[in-house]
Amino acid sequence: MSVTAAKGFSAAGIAAGIKENGNPDLALVVNTGPRRAAAGVVTSNRVKAAPVLWSEQVLKSGQVSAVVLNSGGANACTGPKGFQDTHATAEKAADVLGRAPIEIAVCSTGLIGVLLPMDKLLPGVETAAAQLSEHGGEKAAIAIKTTDTVHKTSVVTTDGWTVGGMAKGAGMLAPGLATMLVVLTTDADVDSATLDKALRAATKVTFDRIDSDGCMSTNDTVLLLASGAGEVTPEYEEFAEAVRAVCDDLGQQLIRDAEGAGKDIKVEVINAATEDDAVEVGRSIARNNLLKCAIHGEDPNWGRVLSAIGTTGAAFEPDQLNVAINGVWVCKNGGVGEDREKVDMRYREVHIVADLAAGAETAVIWTNDLTADYVHENSAYSS
Amino acid sequence: MSVTAAKGFSAAGIAAGIKENGNPDLALVVNTGPRRAAAGVVTSNRVKAAPVLWSEQVLKSGQVSAVVLNSGGANACTGPKGFQDTHATAEKAADVLGRAPIEIAVCSTGLIGVLLPMDKLLPGVETAAAQLSEHGGEKAAIAIKTTDTVHKTSVVTTDGWTVGGMAKGAGMLAPGLATMLVVLTTDADVDSATLDKALRAATKVTFDRIDSDGCMSTNDTVLLLASGAGEVTPEYEEFAEAVRAVCDDLGQQLIRDAEGAGKDIKVEVINAATEDDAVEVGRSIARNNLLKCAIHGEDPNWGRVLSAIGTTGAAFEPDQLNVAINGVWVCKNGGVGEDREKVDMRYREVHIVADLAAGAETAVIWTNDLTADYVHENSAYSS
Repeated sequence: MSVTAAKGFSAAGIAAGIKENGNPDLALVVNTGPRRAAAGVVTSNRVKAAPVLWSEQVLKSGQVSAVVLNSGGANACTGPKGFQDTHATAEKAADVLGRAPIEIAVCSTGLIGVLLPMDKLLPGVETAAAQLSEHGGEKAAIAIKTTDTVHKTSVVTTDGWTVGGMAKGAGMLAPGLATMLVVLTTDADVDSATLDKALRAATKVTFDRIDSDGCMSTNDTVLLLASGAGEVTPEYEEFAEAVRAVCDDLGQQLIRDAEGAGKDIKVEVINAATEDDAVEVGRSIARNNLLKCAIHGEDPNWGRVLSAIGTTGAAFEPDQLNVAINGVWVCKNGGVGEDREKVDMRYREVHIVADLAAGAETAVIWTNDLTADYVHENSAYSS
Repeated sequence: MSVTAAKGFSAAGIAAGIKENGNPDLALVVNTGPRRAAAGVVTSNRVKAAPVLWSEQVLKSGQVSAVVLNSGGANACTGPKGFQDTHATAEKAADVLGRAPIEIAVCSTGLIGVLLPMDKLLPGVETAAAQLSEHGGEKAAIAIKTTDTVHKTSVVTTDGWTVGGMAKGAGMLAPGLATMLVVLTTDADVDSATLDKALRAATKVTFDRIDSDGCMSTNDTVLLLASGAGEVTPEYEEFAEAVRAVCDDLGQQLIRDAEGAGKDIKVEVINAATEDDAVEVGRSIARNNLLKCAIHGEDPNWGRVLSAIGTTGAAFEPDQLNVAINGVWVCKNGGVGEDREKVDMRYREVHIVADLAAGAETAVIWTNDLTADYVHENSAYSS
């Protein structure tokens, strides 16, 4: 269902020939109205891809009529020509759809530093437009995959309105955001300011808290488009919760499909003095290569958790730290706790709890283990 | 030669039985005077091992008579009992050597969260004391190895005085400092304040700028001991340069022996607005797992360099960034530069230059590639 679960949207996904292997590589999502309110969040990387720079301009008006997304090339670090290519893509879509170019968002993903084959991409936009369908969400989700092994979609439906979405992302996954593209749609009748508020609140506690490999992308974009076709304006809290739920579900799907990963690691920081402290400690643990290797080896190496906590500026006393791995408190008061032999690490999900004993705040960061497969996937070829 | 290259020092290295495999695991370095001035730098990790906490107290007086070092166990996160064990070690050495316990520094390295076998360590101190020799530096350097494949020593000799040292460290190598122990000795007649100044200046630009895996240890200690046996007080600049040269040499040896590494990567940041900017950018590049995998695959993936630069707060404009890999400017003005096929990456050393085009400051950070061997070494067993 994906982006076409909500009323007022059509989508398509095709193989335009951007990828040399002939796999689907171009998606089009169109808001058929009656409204076209939108909000978006983009990477905080200061080296932003051309489509990110363009889509930031588009989002200023709070209106998006359509989104063109391509895999097979990030169009990042491609200079003025790269920006012209993004602009030409928006103009082509606007022309075919009868909309204004400034209402066409563009997203790209793939190798950095390579120009897109515009002789394939522009005809591809026409082909995709001809295949637009209210059932096209699945095909669109498939067309934006890069190293993803599965496509990711999610839908929440409540009384009279729906929030649905699609996502791609498998490597370069880190907060602010990840190498990921996400398009969310809703048929609720919500203005762009409300969409923006709900989207930022949702990404802050979902996509911004998954950190597969600590690497921040140049292309990340999360868009939320509202058609108003459901003719219902929900309560803000209810709507924001639906957006958060879809973002959370998609984020979990990203972590479960991360490059080379064998374990999904839930890092839960509890009893922190502030939420910022909890997030800082969670990220430090999630980015510790030695710990990620240990988890891969099913070794409950809590010393590496403590050494990661120790690099942060969070409030804590070293001799009051406690760490549980899969429910066993292997570290108590900064020293040896329960028998580490009790920790069962056979399953894919690993749960680490770091108790800072410094307050009442908490945060969860999701990450993956570090594996030889990750190294292989990111060294054997350019991506 | 190592720590006994300078006059006024004796050392020993023995197998005390701390390591189950029977390899050497206990070193003793004694300053035989006439002076016993000393300075030290320890990890900035807030979770500090018991020997670090003890040695910090020892260093307050600016006087160190001897150093006891053990491999086979870090004595970190071991609570009050761990601290008592360190204290007992210092008392034992003081007793055997006829010195005050507060002048005995202690260093430990190995697995975190395990108490040391004191029934083996304390008799080991006696055995080592009995084997002290002016030619014992090499044996001491061997006894502090953990996952090191070779022992590391360095000596600079000038007119009438010498600075020599030994180091261990192979994983958990990151600034502030690394999982490394370093003991430097000199027969120059230098007071502890001058030693401290020279040592801090040296570590800031050497050990603090090697970053193999971004992980900061709980045990790192660098000690500089002066015997005054050469009866020469050098000019400060000359002395500081000798200390820096020995630290630089030992740091290079650590990088070349890093766990699982196949490439040594020199990240040189040039034309930065400030030295801090240069260091921040260098560290961000050096810690980027995706780039480190690409280098392992001999792929000059400059897009990953730019995405790492983009996560920093340093002064730069994205469209003015230039990147050279092994002398080929593969990225110019933030976009595609010279043909990446020209980059020869067959050799072990890889040189990345990141030109921020924002000033005149520079910094060099050394790191390694990320390999399946690193993953294996850190997942197959606890360390």
